Amino acid sequence: LAGLRAAFDLPTKLIYLNGNSLGPLTKAARARVEEVLRLQWGEGLVSSWNRHQWIELPRSCGEKVAALIGAAPGQVICCDSISINLFKVLAASLQLRPERDLILSTTDNFPTDLYAGQGLNQLLGEGRCRFEVVESTELLDHLDDSVAAIMLSHVDYRSGRLADIGAWTRQAHEIGALAIWDLAHSAGVLPVQLDRWQVDFAVGCGYKYLNGGPGAPAFVYCARRHHGVLNQPLYGWMGHRAAFDFQPVYEPAHGPASFQTGTPPILSMAALDAALGLFEGVDMDAVAAKARALAEFFLQEVEARVALRDLRLESPADADERGAQLAFSHPEAYAICRGMAADSVIFDYRPPRILRLGFSPLFLSFEDVASAASKLDKFLAQQTYREARFRRHQVVP
Amino acid sequence: LAGLRAAFDLPTKLIYLNGNSLGPLTKAARARVEEVLRLQWGEGLVSSWNRHQWIELPRSCGEKVAALIGAAPGQVICCDSISINLFKVLAASLQLRPERDLILSTTDNFPTDLYAGQGLNQLLGEGRCRFEVVESTELLDHLDDSVAAIMLSHVDYRSGRLADIGAWTRQAHEIGALAIWDLAHSAGVLPVQLDRWQVDFAVGCGYKYLNGGPGAPAFVYCARRHHGVLNQPLYGWMGHRAAFDFQPVYEPAHGPASFQTGTPPILSMAALDAALGLFEGVDMDAVAAKARALAEFFLQEVEARVALRDLRLESPADADERGAQLAFSHPEAYAICRGMAADSVIFDYRPPRILRLGFSPLFLSFEDVASAASKLDKFLAQQTYREARFRRHQVVP
Repeated sequence: LAGLRAAFDLPTKLIYLNGNSLGPLTKAARARVEEVLRLQWGEGLVSSWNRHQWIELPRSCGEKVAALIGAAPGQVICCDSISINLFKVLAASLQLRPERDLILSTTDNFPTDLYAGQGLNQLLGEGRCRFEVVESTELLDHLDDSVAAIMLSHVDYRSGRLADIGAWTRQAHEIGALAIWDLAHSAGVLPVQLDRWQVDFAVGCGYKYLNGGPGAPAFVYCARRHHGVLNQPLYGWMGHRAAFDFQPVYEPAHGPASFQTGTPPILSMAALDAALGLFEGVDMDAVAAKARALAEFFLQEVEARVALRDLRLESPADADERGAQLAFSHPEAYAICRGMAADSVIFDYRPPRILRLGFSPLFLSFEDVASAASKLDKFLAQQTYREARFRRHQVVP
Repeated sequence: LAGLRAAFDLPTKLIYLNGNSLGPLTKAARARVEEVLRLQWGEGLVSSWNRHQWIELPRSCGEKVAALIGAAPGQVICCDSISINLFKVLAASLQLRPERDLILSTTDNFPTDLYAGQGLNQLLGEGRCRFEVVESTELLDHLDDSVAAIMLSHVDYRSGRLADIGAWTRQAHEIGALAIWDLAHSAGVLPVQLDRWQVDFAVGCGYKYLNGGPGAPAFVYCARRHHGVLNQPLYGWMGHRAAFDFQPVYEPAHGPASFQTGTPPILSMAALDAALGLFEGVDMDAVAAKARALAEFFLQEVEARVALRDLRLESPADADERGAQLAFSHPEAYAICRGMAADSVIFDYRPPRILRLGFSPLFLSFEDVASAASKLDKFLAQQTYREARFRRHQVVP
């Protein structure tokens, strides 16, 4: 995979351990968006909807994502944001389980995912939709025949803890519920097998490991067995069976196409489409193996250095139990994040004291990881960063 | 306004009468997106959310739109698509009128607007939300105290017929209903006075007269008097009161910010922001006057030419009753549209026999309009285009 580094347009010397927040620019995305600007929008104007297949982008991006998440063709579409797509999927799930009203999630799920459930609950009211959040350790106890769907994340956005999609999906199915998964922190970096795991719906974003650019459109996976009966409530012309017929009455398209609503943002979607091209011919098992090896290597480096002993691992120590990221807590996490950035190493800071590091295997090398550990070691060995933090707190109380 | 032509990156010699479908590329949008690619995403990476104020774009674009539609600051946000924003606005309207369940629209409204109402109706069910569509001539008869909101378009997308926003909004308010307006075909080209007209909610798109690019984010206007009690159901982190606190429970931001849901598509939104910059210092009355004069001039040219006598005006003949577009029907509308495109004049074709012409005053000149009429005259004077049509029909039955 080392050869893929050249496909990225990363600043020289930068060690970017934040690809799990915003994936970097690829040369392909830059070239494509410039082409869309000058040639497609600039010269082709409105004819580019057909001539340059803008209208096909949600589907063609969807098929590229499908190949990365173990989905046979025809089950994934790219559109809107995770939050909006979850609303659609939750509503569709209630429609598929009309005798049930409970959607279950867990306290450690990503907040915006929880908001989607809260929004649907607020709109439909208690008799039609209950939304409950429980500790993940207690989820099993809450699975009963009032549950229409469980909504979980594959990888915990803070700790990186990995959920067993196959096992939880089976548990949900055993009680007749549907299983909805958020793949934001796994699509493009871990082996995901949605078809094999019998997942019902999944969502994910385009701007983390897929490198689609800031706010890139999200995706929705919808298992083929549900295609005939889908009915998500955010109707719009792009989801219509015959989008260009301008019929007065909405009739949903078949399958995931019906998860589209309005006109897609083409500049952003073209960047995503080009970035997804990087995965062509790439073995996802090799990607996952490298991500794991990079993280393990970093952990070894941390253990070997005295100055790093205050870093406390907040991710599972067992690589089998986590995704492609590591979280550490440290009382000076903010100062470390700023200090390292000044030395061209980008970490993610999560208040109040978490450092989060993402090991994107398409552009990171083992040399990058060694260098990051070494720079962190030097930074923590010189104690002056504590004074810097103190000054900051004085200025901004 | 003639000087603004140089701000556009239109192909030389092209006469583009389709800016009401997709506004053309501006030099500012091209330069901005290239900067976002190389400098902001490419080099700044995740820090650009703050450093380059990506996070502010929905609000800053919203304020720029506000200035064009007669809205005092703090009432407009840019996000998502018209279809999705209408769903939010319709749901919020029902929440504001809890004792009512009827949303009224008209058969001539844009289909995707109707779909939004049908989707909400399907989700909530008859007891909670009825959605009815009536002939616009009969709308007044249907206004009674079951109506929660009327949802109408300022300009009919086909005929260009203009609705009297002020008068209809008063009618709605007289029966205690809210008034929701779609400004897709008026924002940026007609004088719109939402505050003065006491409109409750409005939506519009960024890619027509605002020139924001294909699928540019849409906008939502929400009158200040509703800000304290708003509750739209598509909850997401961007609409949270404290987006970066990652709280487990959703609390809406104050005002239009709460109409945001997920992460905005930055490349597309940056293009919109730059394109909106063109309107700075531009007098909207002058824009509307030029649009009207361009259309009147085209009508005069049509009347003066014998070969154009088969074109039948489908827009109101009185300029006071229409927006910045003209529709003509002609039995050979499709062949005309193709033939004119081959001669560098872009019309919009609407099946089965409508030609739609948009008079975007920021980049069109009177010379362009004269030239378009002259070319159309020549095209229709030589009868061979009918054979071309015949051949096409044989090949593609």
